[in-house]
Amino acid sequence: MHDTTLKALADRFGLTLRGDPDHRVGSLATLASAGPGDVSFLANPAYARDLAECRAGAVIIGEDLAGRWSGNALISKNPYASWARIAAFLQPLPAAEPGVHASAVVAEDAQVDPSASVGPQASVGAGARIGRNVVVGPGCVIAEDAVIGDDSRLVGRVYIGPQCRLGERVLVHPGAVIGADGFGLAMDAGQWIKVPQMGTVVIGDDCEIGANTTIDRGAIEDTELAEDVRLDNQVQIAHNVRIGAHTAIAGCVGIAGSTHIGSYCMIAGACGIGGHLSICDKVIVTAMSTVLDSITEPGEYGSGIPARPHARWKRILVRLGQLDDWVRRLRRLERNQS
Amino acid sequence: MHDTTLKALADRFGLTLRGDPDHRVGSLATLASAGPGDVSFLANPAYARDLAECRAGAVIIGEDLAGRWSGNALISKNPYASWARIAAFLQPLPAAEPGVHASAVVAEDAQVDPSASVGPQASVGAGARIGRNVVVGPGCVIAEDAVIGDDSRLVGRVYIGPQCRLGERVLVHPGAVIGADGFGLAMDAGQWIKVPQMGTVVIGDDCEIGANTTIDRGAIEDTELAEDVRLDNQVQIAHNVRIGAHTAIAGCVGIAGSTHIGSYCMIAGACGIGGHLSICDKVIVTAMSTVLDSITEPGEYGSGIPARPHARWKRILVRLGQLDDWVRRLRRLERNQS
Amino acid sequence: MHDTTLKALADRFGLTLRGDPDHRVGSLATLASAGPGDVSFLANPAYARDLAECRAGAVIIGEDLAGRWSGNALISKNPYASWARIAAFLQPLPAAEPGVHASAVVAEDAQVDPSASVGPQASVGAGARIGRNVVVGPGCVIAEDAVIGDDSRLVGRVYIGPQCRLGERVLVHPGAVIGADGFGLAMDAGQWIKVPQMGTVVIGDDCEIGANTTIDRGAIEDTELAEDVRLDNQVQIAHNVRIGAHTAIAGCVGIAGSTHIGSYCMIAGACGIGGHLSICDKVIVTAMSTVLDSITEPGEYGSGIPARPHARWKRILVRLGQLDDWVRRLRRLERNQS
Repeated sequence: MHDTTLKALADRFGLTLRGDPDHRVGSLATLASAGPGDVSFLANPAYARDLAECRAGAVIIGEDLAGRWSGNALISKNPYASWARIAAFLQPLPAAEPGVHASAVVAEDAQVDPSASVGPQASVGAGARIGRNVVVGPGCVIAEDAVIGDDSRLVGRVYIGPQCRLGERVLVHPGAVIGADGFGLAMDAGQWIKVPQMGTVVIGDDCEIGANTTIDRGAIEDTELAEDVRLDNQVQIAHNVRIGAHTAIAGCVGIAGSTHIGSYCMIAGACGIGGHLSICDKVIVTAMSTVLDSITEPGEYGSGIPARPHARWKRILVRLGQLDDWVRRLRRLERNQS
Repeated sequence: MHDTTLKALADRFGLTLRGDPDHRVGSLATLASAGPGDVSFLANPAYARDLAECRAGAVIIGEDLAGRWSGNALISKNPYASWARIAAFLQPLPAAEPGVHASAVVAEDAQVDPSASVGPQASVGAGARIGRNVVVGPGCVIAEDAVIGDDSRLVGRVYIGPQCRLGERVLVHPGAVIGADGFGLAMDAGQWIKVPQMGTVVIGDDCEIGANTTIDRGAIEDTELAEDVRLDNQVQIAHNVRIGAHTAIAGCVGIAGSTHIGSYCMIAGACGIGGHLSICDKVIVTAMSTVLDSITEPGEYGSGIPARPHARWKRILVRLGQLDDWVRRLRRLERNQS
Repeated sequence: MHDTTLKALADRFGLTLRGDPDHRVGSLATLASAGPGDVSFLANPAYARDLAECRAGAVIIGEDLAGRWSGNALISKNPYASWARIAAFLQPLPAAEPGVHASAVVAEDAQVDPSASVGPQASVGAGARIGRNVVVGPGCVIAEDAVIGDDSRLVGRVYIGPQCRLGERVLVHPGAVIGADGFGLAMDAGQWIKVPQMGTVVIGDDCEIGANTTIDRGAIEDTELAEDVRLDNQVQIAHNVRIGAHTAIAGCVGIAGSTHIGSYCMIAGACGIGGHLSICDKVIVTAMSTVLDSITEPGEYGSGIPARPHARWKRILVRLGQLDDWVRRLRRLERNQS
């Protein structure tokens, strides 16, 4: 943990300081719980009410709300981003020790950069390449010929399949499976025949892959994530999907095979997106929606239904089932009236 | 496996015995397959039809249904709970051998109680503490400074993140990931900036966490499960969620960040619950519903739609899309008629 | 990788060759990217447009479309199945080395066939039996008394619970958990009591289990998959479910306890299927549908709603909430008119 002055923080992160430049801070807290040694932040106006009682050593805040806070302020155009950077600076992750743990298994012809850390019980397959400062956490499995780019971190118990390639600064959370076979089956004479999945997974720089998320290898060509794609936990990406740069996908979303998603899209939690679709850039899909058609216009889309009290919802379901009948009756009324 | 008399079972579990007190039983079976050495049970009246042919050595049964069974009966006010206790007594889990397996890796300054069992290929990080009688199954990863309370059991291949704390008698199934980073991102100049996730996960006594379930660490403060919370498989709990005591959540449910769920709630399978909501005590959410608003009254809520034959469902979808138009036409009819 | 002539391929796989029998091929590619050494295929007529520019050494193609391709053709009644077989033949998986890796832990009384391969960091529990040519990949955990049939492959980081039995040629992808406890709870005096889960999981020959998929052990009797059942990633199968032969289930589907699903069913992605249901043979469920009633007739069923632009969808939601009111107004109109 660092301990520094507000002036040093303002200088380092390009913020306007209002208050005591020599005040020292070293830790981080919410507005409600912060003390004099803490930095806090206000990004969501709903929390402005917490400013009244706030005892933080400094608050990262936008110019619009700074008037509501009389203490030390680090004024930012983007308080949440400034918070992200200052938090990472004040509480950096502990550095992993370089080298291969005695219990890890590294194939003879795998290349592990000396600056990389391979943790307990990890295994690295033949021909795999582990870049500079990479952290391969405990229990990870890196299959043969996989490539992990510089400064990437596999937190623990991650599986990377054969020939898959991760860019630089990729962060993969525990339980993620990158490069299992896609779901390819041909029916013949009443039996399923497995279709070999010969592509790989290629992940761009600065991507983040959530816990227990799965990304299948391509059938012939590769499954691809461009740079800065962010996947939350338990996301399922099927074979040959392509996801554009800076797209963020929340937890429990499933994307079926061969669908292409543009850049700067945001898919909310638990959505299902069908196969062989094309979703253009800057599409937002709201929670628990089902996307079954390609989308060619940026904007917000959805089909999720908010829950209601059960009795009311049951009545709506009955009406929904009768819709066709009601429409018929309505048409008859129109005919009679005309 | 124990072998005991019906009298001993009735005495131990506070049940009323009807029949032969000296009859010996040692195993467990369904009504349909039980033989004279087996205990069975009837909790769901739908299975009362199986009593006719039943050959069980004893049936755990409620007073209301006991008249329909002529054999030995262990009469209980709560047959299912009595079954749970008797089954656990007659077929206890094999005890794990205390001690650290030769292949496990335990950091020098980790504390492992001598009564605990650390299985093959497990790893325990620096500063972690493993309590009395804890079982850390094969392939588990316990990160630095995590705390596992007495009598807890991590079945195998479980990941517990840094500083996370599990209470006593917590049961965690394989593939669960507790304490991965929450999904916190700030957009700045067209790039995502990762927001450090500095909170942990705190899990109360007697919780059960299903296979491949994920519980994210808090952003600043902690993600919290109170005591006796029961999560099924593939549940996703985002950062800063809090779940009250005795709440049960079925498989494939996702709960978005900062939502608070009360005590004694029951969330059925595959529901999605939005972020920053507050759900009060004793709320039931039916299967595959989407909760997007806070709930302040106990009761049952839902928005799931039961599947219909495809042709019929397609027609309903068409009508759904035209609803606005039909409402307009209905209003015109009303105007014309008045 | 094999290298062979088109005549040899046609003979081996029972195809009709049109073109140069001595042409040599050894690799595989899409129509759009194939060169003279590649075999490609056309199964989906939508890709027939790629034939015009195609440079493949041979195309596996149906008789109906063969006229649109002037190059070497391997004519098949089922081009996709022929492709699956030829791809597996030309690019076979690298054979795993028989034997137990030095870092693996095998219990003394476990039986591992000498032809089987047990990879790095794997562990095999007491009494487990590993059949001929089985591959137990890196980091797998096979619990006590589990049985893995001949020629099965657990790719890596798979968990197989106590007493679970896999048939022959079963393929299990990373992160899958087979045989965790089912979700069985009895409420008593305000506390949940865990109901012991004493059944196992039995999986038939030729099944495939996707990455991070979970299959719970039965409560008393077993959870069962018949032969040739294919599960995609992140599928959740609860206790005592039975699935008939040749049924395929796409990603993110959840099936609640004790439901029986017939043979040759196809469940599309992200569906939720309720508990204690019976689904007959040859049922198709479309994506993101909720099945809450038993199905007794083969055919297609669904309740998924395709996403729309948000503003339009919000208006439909409003109308949906008012449905009951509109129906009442419609009835009044009918009364007034009559």
